[in-house]
Amino acid sequence: MLLESLIDKATQVSAKTIAVAAAEDEEVIDAVLDALNRNLANFILFGDKEKINTILEVKRHDTKDTKNLVIVHANTNASAAELAVKAVFNREADVLMKGNIPTSTLLKAVLNKEYGLRTGNVLSHVAVFEVPGYDRFTIVTDAGMNIAPDLEQKAQITINAVTIAKSIGIDIPKVAPIAAVEVVNPVMQATLDAAALTTMNKRGQISDCIVDGPLALDNAVSELAAEHKGIRSEVAGKADILLVPTIEVGNVLYKSLIYFANAKVGAVIAGAKAPIVLTSRSDSAESKLYSLALALCCVSK
Amino acid sequence: MLLESLIDKATQVSAKTIAVAAAEDEEVIDAVLDALNRNLANFILFGDKEKINTILEVKRHDTKDTKNLVIVHANTNASAAELAVKAVFNREADVLMKGNIPTSTLLKAVLNKEYGLRTGNVLSHVAVFEVPGYDRFTIVTDAGMNIAPDLEQKAQITINAVTIAKSIGIDIPKVAPIAAVEVVNPVMQATLDAAALTTMNKRGQISDCIVDGPLALDNAVSELAAEHKGIRSEVAGKADILLVPTIEVGNVLYKSLIYFANAKVGAVIAGAKAPIVLTSRSDSAESKLYSLALALCCVSK
Repeated sequence: MLLESLIDKATQVSAKTIAVAAAEDEEVIDAVLDALNRNLANFILFGDKEKINTILEVKRHDTKDTKNLVIVHANTNASAAELAVKAVFNREADVLMKGNIPTSTLLKAVLNKEYGLRTGNVLSHVAVFEVPGYDRFTIVTDAGMNIAPDLEQKAQITINAVTIAKSIGIDIPKVAPIAAVEVVNPVMQATLDAAALTTMNKRGQISDCIVDGPLALDNAVSELAAEHKGIRSEVAGKADILLVPTIEVGNVLYKSLIYFANAKVGAVIAGAKAPIVLTSRSDSAESKLYSLALALCCVSK
Repeated sequence: MLLESLIDKATQVSAKTIAVAAAEDEEVIDAVLDALNRNLANFILFGDKEKINTILEVKRHDTKDTKNLVIVHANTNASAAELAVKAVFNREADVLMKGNIPTSTLLKAVLNKEYGLRTGNVLSHVAVFEVPGYDRFTIVTDAGMNIAPDLEQKAQITINAVTIAKSIGIDIPKVAPIAAVEVVNPVMQATLDAAALTTMNKRGQISDCIVDGPLALDNAVSELAAEHKGIRSEVAGKADILLVPTIEVGNVLYKSLIYFANAKVGAVIAGAKAPIVLTSRSDSAESKLYSLALALCCVSK
């Protein structure tokens, strides 16, 4: 599957609105204008209006149309975050996007009890990869939010990823809880949690998906490797979602896919009332666009 | 760098001998014959002599020469392991190779107090990768032996990997202790250990290398990514050795390189009196040959 298809999908549904917190940044504006050029969504940019306009003046000649763009002034980063979150809370916007502010500033507003976007669920990072040579999306979670999730958190991280997978057309996603081995080993917590998640799925505590683990990465993604090991599993060799045990595993897998395997990626934070896009400076322009498209697919039901 | 160069290097030094524990297996014999055909080493095969000879009869027509091959009968797997380890202990062989027996059976003999191969060091898995598009070897440790090493063990794992790196021509290897972030975060043990390892290197507790961490994988292998983050480091962007915090991180990185990035690999267990080759059924024939060549490079000084 190609991530480009998410852009097509996002443009086909009725126009959604993205609220950007602290948009006064060249790379953020580039991403916004890219999205506008692709007719992906409408935008409300919160932040220093003068700075935003100055950057827009320079960039605007490359842009077909900025009529779907509204700028709302905010004096500080915290205020920009609050206003952007409130816009989503009040349904004036469908997706929240981080601009040029620390993630912690944005999350503080997201977690505000009065106007925030909490649902009671764990917030988790869900990355959708297009890996050269693989004909399906590879979803990795959680590579960015939860450091060392316990079993209950892993269950919620799974549920968040399943929701994202369904929103991009994977009806019954196959979930592989990843460990270093495919057998249960009492001294490897990842294998114990994987076994527990598998049973939670069988007992209906995690639904709308098939969970089977522990699996090592090769058993999860390669049918040949699974066969070699004699693993009988509905998930082995064809996992849609790779549930990693710690943030270090997720981060290394994420970076390995980008830097060694030339994969493409789009990612969102799931588990809040609306999807949150946290692009970073090191993301490519393409990757930022895929993240926005992914977020829009999540709200386009 | 190409792993093929290790085969060239191994064939250029005076002939070494590899002791194989429990060689009565088609895939093991295939690897042995491959190595003989490349004039890589001499072999002593320990195991069921009749079965070994039967397999050899079938395969021998493809093989130039089996005069550098000795078979020593052993009644059981445990006995084959003991005899193979003793051959290395007595300097009749230079490298130990696992045949068709469980790793635990072999390691039990390796760790025997009377004739075993312990040095007091931690045994650790060292994998040398040739990654398409990268012009240097990427060494990953420990992806296979130590589950969740503590700081002292990580220091020894580093020292083991540095020894291997030097044996393949990397004189002052650059070591990146990997974490999910490049800053010290008190709730992420990997970042604390990485900082401690960096200081241990500065104080001479880990020598013959340059250690600098924590680094995330992208900062470690991509100079551009390191620049983006403003990281000033002798290691960032050009790490030779990626020291991973847990076996799950190592295993996922190892499998990701093989299955997603089409990398080639050779691996040994380091830290014993002689290198140990633990190839598994799922390794390619090429990978088994690289592992043997790597082990031979380690003893060819």
